[in-house]
This record gives sequence, C-alpha cells and structure tokens, in this order.
Amino acid sequence: MSSSPPSRGRPRNPRSHSAIVGAAAELVVEVGYAATSIGAVAARAGVGKDTIYRRWPGKPELVFEAVFTTTDNAPTPDTGTLAGDLTVLLQGLVDEFHAPAAAAVLPGLLADFAADPVLKARIRSDFLAPSKERLLIVFERAVARGEIAAETPVDLVLDTLAGAVFFHIGLVGEHPDPQLAALLAAVVAKGIEVR
Amino acid sequence: MSSSPPSRGRPRNPRSHSAIVGAAAELVVEVGYAATSIGAVAARAGVGKDTIYRRWPGKPELVFEAVFTTTDNAPTPDTGTLAGDLTVLLQGLVDEFHAPAAAAVLPGLLADFAADPVLKARIRSDFLAPSKERLLIVFERAVARGEIAAETPVDLVLDTLAGAVFFHIGLVGEHPDPQLAALLAAVVAKGIEVR
Repeated sequence: MSSSPPSRGRPRNPRSHSAIVGAAAELVVEVGYAATSIGAVAARAGVGKDTIYRRWPGKPELVFEAVFTTTDNAPTPDTGTLAGDLTVLLQGLVDEFHAPAAAAVLPGLLADFAADPVLKARIRSDFLAPSKERLLIVFERAVARGEIAAETPVDLVLDTLAGAVFFHIGLVGEHPDPQLAALLAAVVAKGIEVR
Repeated sequence: MSSSPPSRGRPRNPRSHSAIVGAAAELVVEVGYAATSIGAVAARAGVGKDTIYRRWPGKPELVFEAVFTTTDNAPTPDTGTLAGDLTVLLQGLVDEFHAPAAAAVLPGLLADFAADPVLKARIRSDFLAPSKERLLIVFERAVARGEIAAETPVDLVLDTLAGAVFFHIGLVGEHPDPQLAALLAAVVAKGIEVR
C-alpha cells in the first residue's frame, strides 16, 4: 500500500492542539498580548507556524480559544431573588475578567476583534454567550416570580453588566472593588424590577 | 549678533501643532488606528517625526488629543429629574463614542493605554473627566431633590454608564440602538433612586 499525502479528512494531532493552546496561555501572561506572536507560540509549543495556521485563522482566534474557552460547568445561580442571582453572575464575570490571562489580553484582544469585520460581528456572541444563556434563565425565573416584565431587554442588561465589569476590571482594576458585583447587581436589579 | 541654537524656552510653532493633530484625526478615519503611524502622521502634516516626538511621548497620547480633546462647552443638563439628566448625558456619550474618529480609535486606543503602566492609571481621568464633572453636578441636584442619597457611588455609576456605552457603541454598534440612552438612563436612575 503506497502512503497517501495528508487529506482534508486526516485528524489533527490533539497533543499539538493542546500544546499550542497551552503555549499561548503561558506567553500572554509572561509577555502580554501585543508581544505574543504566532512565531513565539509555535516555538514554545514545539511546532511549526503552519501547524498553527492550519487550525486558526490568526492570533486573535487562537488567543481567544486559549484564554476564554473553558469547560463551563458553573451552574446558573438560583438564590431566590433577581439581585442575588445577578450578584453571583457578576462575581463570575469579575473573576473571569480578572484572572491573569484574561486580564493580560482583554483590551488588546477586543481591539483586534473590533478591527476585523468578521470578528467584530462575533464579539457579543463569542465573549458573552455563556453569560447570556445564564442571564436568560435568571430572567425567566424573575419573570415567573413577577420581579421583572417579560419584555425586559436582555441584551441591553447584558451589555451594561459586561461593559461595566470590563471597564472597571479590564481597564483600571488592579485591585477590583470587592463590592463591585453586589453594588452593580443591586442597582441593575432595582433598575429593571417592576414591583 | 551670532545666531543661537533653539533653547528649551523656544515657543513651539502652533501651526505645526494643529497640522499634526489634524493629520492624526484624518488618518485614523482613513486607515484605522492600528495603521496610523507617527511616520504617516508626520508625512501628512509636513513635519519631521522628531517634531512630533518633541510634543507627544507617543502615538496613544497624540491620537487621544487629536480625537478626544475638544473645547467642551456643552452645558450640564438640567431637565428636572435624574432620569432626564442621565438621558442627556448618555446621549452625549453615545454621540461622542460614535463619531467617526472616536469609533475608529476607541478599542485600539484603550488597549494601548491599558498596556502602558503610566497611561493605564490615567484611563479613567483622561477619558471620563468631563463626564465625571457633569455627573457630579447632576448628582448634587438629585441629592437636593431627595432623589438619591448623598453617598451614591459616583465612580461606579460612571464606570457602568461609560462601560455600557463603550461596549454597545465602541465594540458592536454600527447602528447604535436609538433607545440606548433613554433605556440605560431609566434603568440606572431607578436603580439608584431612594424614593
């Protein structure tokens, strides 16, 4: 049997994949987002640059996967009140944005996403999808309890919460205010409640 | 009398200053923030790069001045209610962030500020100083009317409003929701009111 050249169906080596992702996550913490190049990631992972480019279109997509794609098993909070649920959701966002790799990449990564027409359209979905799913469940319960109206604008609330956390943590927050999640949750809950 | 070399006290040529600032503002709209280099600005302005570096430490400081430093004569709103005043303030932020040059530079410029230890500490003051002054006056009136408590956390509210507008407009908003300012103002006003 003659050997066949790699075909489109040839499975990718999973060890390369995790070596690359791990190298990217290490480098952004060590040298920051701007200084982390595909070449440096390739060298750290012990692969060629083409091995990286076969899997990811470019640096933003790779860094996003390395830093923000986690097996997200966190249950949706169910504290009994909207303010309580929002506090837990927000503390989760604060912790996620403040983790070393996320804090290192967020402003630069968002800027690269915003500068790419294809990626710009994916900002809200890529960065906020898990949070939006959980917020929808929290809102359903709040509607059932009569706390908020069914037509409460979920995207506006999500943008407000994510934007506030990004601004406070991602841009200025060496030491994020420990009361941030509770205060912001209280203000937003009171702001959208109808009873 | 022999000619003397330029001394530290020699006044800078104001025409160079405005030519440089104007060139930067044009270029970021034409080619975006990332592609706007000091060299390109110098060429457009008809000056040498050293002329630029004598006045500004680097690109972020220059672009910030070119895009965000305006003679800000907008009066602080006084509509009679907190929600009304916040709506006007927010619409001002929406308009400012959505203007072509600001929209072109905001994500990348914020990323460069965040990546520089000196500039990072100035993000809140540089970008939000005029808004904070106006918000403080709006809050004073709201306290006097008994709408909010005197200890309402002004930085948290400002971060929330600016973050929400930045996220909605700066990152995703080709066509910003025309109701954004009013909705966000209503939610935040209701969220912080005590009566």
